[in-house]
Amino acid sequence: MRAGIDLGGTKIQAVVIDDEGAVKGQERLPTPTKGGPADVAVAMATSVRTAAEQAGVETADLSGVGIGSPGVIDARRGVVSSARNLPSWEGSFKLGAALTEALGARVRIDNDVNVATEAELALGAGRPYRSMLGVFWGTGVGGGIVLRGRPWLGRGAAGEIGHVCVVIDGARCPCGRRGCVEAYAGRKALEERARHRHEKGHKTELFKIMEKRGRDRLTSGVWARALDHDDKLAHKLIDEAVDALGAGVASTLNVLDVEAVILGGGLGLRLGEPYRKRIEEAMMPHLFSSENPPPFLMAELGDLGGAIGAALLIKLPKTAAAS
Amino acid sequence: MRAGIDLGGTKIQAVVIDDEGAVKGQERLPTPTKGGPADVAVAMATSVRTAAEQAGVETADLSGVGIGSPGVIDARRGVVSSARNLPSWEGSFKLGAALTEALGARVRIDNDVNVATEAELALGAGRPYRSMLGVFWGTGVGGGIVLRGRPWLGRGAAGEIGHVCVVIDGARCPCGRRGCVEAYAGRKALEERARHRHEKGHKTELFKIMEKRGRDRLTSGVWARALDHDDKLAHKLIDEAVDALGAGVASTLNVLDVEAVILGGGLGLRLGEPYRKRIEEAMMPHLFSSENPPPFLMAELGDLGGAIGAALLIKLPKTAAAS
Repeated sequence: MRAGIDLGGTKIQAVVIDDEGAVKGQERLPTPTKGGPADVAVAMATSVRTAAEQAGVETADLSGVGIGSPGVIDARRGVVSSARNLPSWEGSFKLGAALTEALGARVRIDNDVNVATEAELALGAGRPYRSMLGVFWGTGVGGGIVLRGRPWLGRGAAGEIGHVCVVIDGARCPCGRRGCVEAYAGRKALEERARHRHEKGHKTELFKIMEKRGRDRLTSGVWARALDHDDKLAHKLIDEAVDALGAGVASTLNVLDVEAVILGGGLGLRLGEPYRKRIEEAMMPHLFSSENPPPFLMAELGDLGGAIGAALLIKLPKTAAAS
Repeated sequence: MRAGIDLGGTKIQAVVIDDEGAVKGQERLPTPTKGGPADVAVAMATSVRTAAEQAGVETADLSGVGIGSPGVIDARRGVVSSARNLPSWEGSFKLGAALTEALGARVRIDNDVNVATEAELALGAGRPYRSMLGVFWGTGVGGGIVLRGRPWLGRGAAGEIGHVCVVIDGARCPCGRRGCVEAYAGRKALEERARHRHEKGHKTELFKIMEKRGRDRLTSGVWARALDHDDKLAHKLIDEAVDALGAGVASTLNVLDVEAVILGGGLGLRLGEPYRKRIEEAMMPHLFSSENPPPFLMAELGDLGGAIGAALLIKLPKTAAAS
C-alpha cells in the first residue's frame, strides 16, 4: 500500500492505493487558509492517517507517501518553496521531513501538475497516447506535458500554460505579470475579479452563496452554483476565463502539436463536460491544426487524479509489484 | 558536394557545400511574385546551377539537392502544398520531380524552419544545447523546436510560434486568425499594416524607399532603411512587432523551458543585434523563469543557414563522409 496527497490551494486530498492503483482509502480536508506551512503539514498528515485507517494499514507500514505540491520543489531534499497559493508559504519548508516525522513513512514530493499528468497517462484518459497536454484549471492554471511517452519538464519549469500571455498589457495575474491565462481563468484571480467588480457595484450572488455555504472563498462549487442560477457576473467572468483558456491551450498546441488534451483541475472537474466543450470551442479559432484538432478529453481519474499520481511517485520493489 | 535551397517568400537562396559543411558556391535570386509554382521551380533550378558552377561541379554530379520549403510538405512524394507566401501556390505542386528533371539530381524536401533549426543545431549557435527554440522572423514567423537533441515535430505541425495568440480578438493575421504573433510581426502582415495606415493618411517613407530601390514589396532592407531614417510609422509598427514577438517567445518558453533561443529569419538577421536585444527585453516581463532566462542568441549561419540546413537533408554515404 502507498499513500498519495494532492496538496491544492483549496483542498488536501489523500488516498491510499494498492499495487494495481485501486483506491483503498481516501480523505479530503480543506487547505488551511491561516497559519503557515507547518499547519498545512499537520492537515496533510491527518488526511493520510484517516485514509490509511480506512485502508486498514498503519501509516508506518506504508511503502511511502507521495506528495503532489504547488510551488518550487526540491525533490531530493523534500523542500517546497514559494507556494504562493498556500498560506504564508513564500519561503522554504521541509515538507518531506515534517511528514516523515508525523507518519513514520518515507516521503517523495513532485510538482502537483506533473503527478496529475502522470496519473492520467498511466491510468486515465492519456493511456492511448505517446504525447499529451494536461490542462489543470483550478486555483491556478497548470499544464503537464508528455512527449515521446515521457514527461517534458524542460529545465524544470516547463508546462506553465497558465502564464502563456493571451492579452499583451492585459489583466494583472496573481504572478505579477500581465495578460496571462491564469489572470482570467485561475480560481484565485477569478475571485479577485469578482470581488473587485462587486465592490464597484456589479450585482452578483457569488458572495451570498459563499456565505450560505460557510466558505471563506469562492470555491469551484460556489462558481458552479452561481452559474446554475444564471448569475450574470459569474457568467461574464467564466466566459472570459473560457476564452483565455481556449486561446492559451490553442497557443500551446500550436507549439507542441501533441496527440491529446486532457482537462482536469478543481474548476475543470467541477464545471465538467459542458465547460470542457466550451473551452474546446474557444480553442478552435486559434488552433493552427484546426482541420485536425487533437481529442480534447476530460480527466478520467477525476478529483482523485492528483492524489493517485502522487502515490505513483512511490515505486514499488519489483518483487512486491510482481506478487 | 551537396546543394541546398532555402525557398523563402522574398528570396531563393542556394548553396553548394562540401562534406564538412563549408560553402563552395552560392546564389541568391528574388522569389518570383507572379506566375506560379512552376516559375518558382525554374528560379530555384537557376540558383542551384549558378551555385554549382561556382563550386566547379555539374548539378547531375551532386549527391543531391535539399530544399527547405514553406507550406505543407509531403517529403516522401516531394510535394509542396498550401505555400501561402508563394505566388499561386494554394494547391499542390510536385516540386521534387520538377527539380530532379531540371537538375538531374535527387531531391529531398523538408520544412524551411526545420532545416534552418537543424543547421543552427549542427553547425551554428545551437551546438552547445540539447534543447532549443529557433525563432525565424521573416515573411512569416516560424519556430523550430529541438528537445533531447532531436527535432520535435509533434504530429507534423509543431513549432507554429507565429500563430501563438498574443491578443485575443487582436489584429487579423494573414492566416485568417486573430491576434497571432505573425499578425503583428510577419513581414507580409507588416506590409499590409503599413499600407493600410499609409492609405489612411499616416506619413511614412517606407513606400518611397521601396520604389527608389526598385522593389515591389517592403523587404527587410526597406524596413531597416526606414528605421535608420527614424520613420515614425516604421518604428511604431516594428515596436508592435517586437512586443508581439517578445510575448510569443515568452509564452513558448513558458511551455517548453528550453536551454536556448536562437533568432534568425530575414527580418531577424537584417535588423540584427539591436533588435535581438529588444525582443529579449520585450520577452522578459512575460517570462515565467525570469530569474533564469535562457540565452537568447543570434543565428550564427546568417542568411545561408536555411540553405545549408537544406543541404544537410542530403545524407552522405558513410564511406564518402569518412573519406
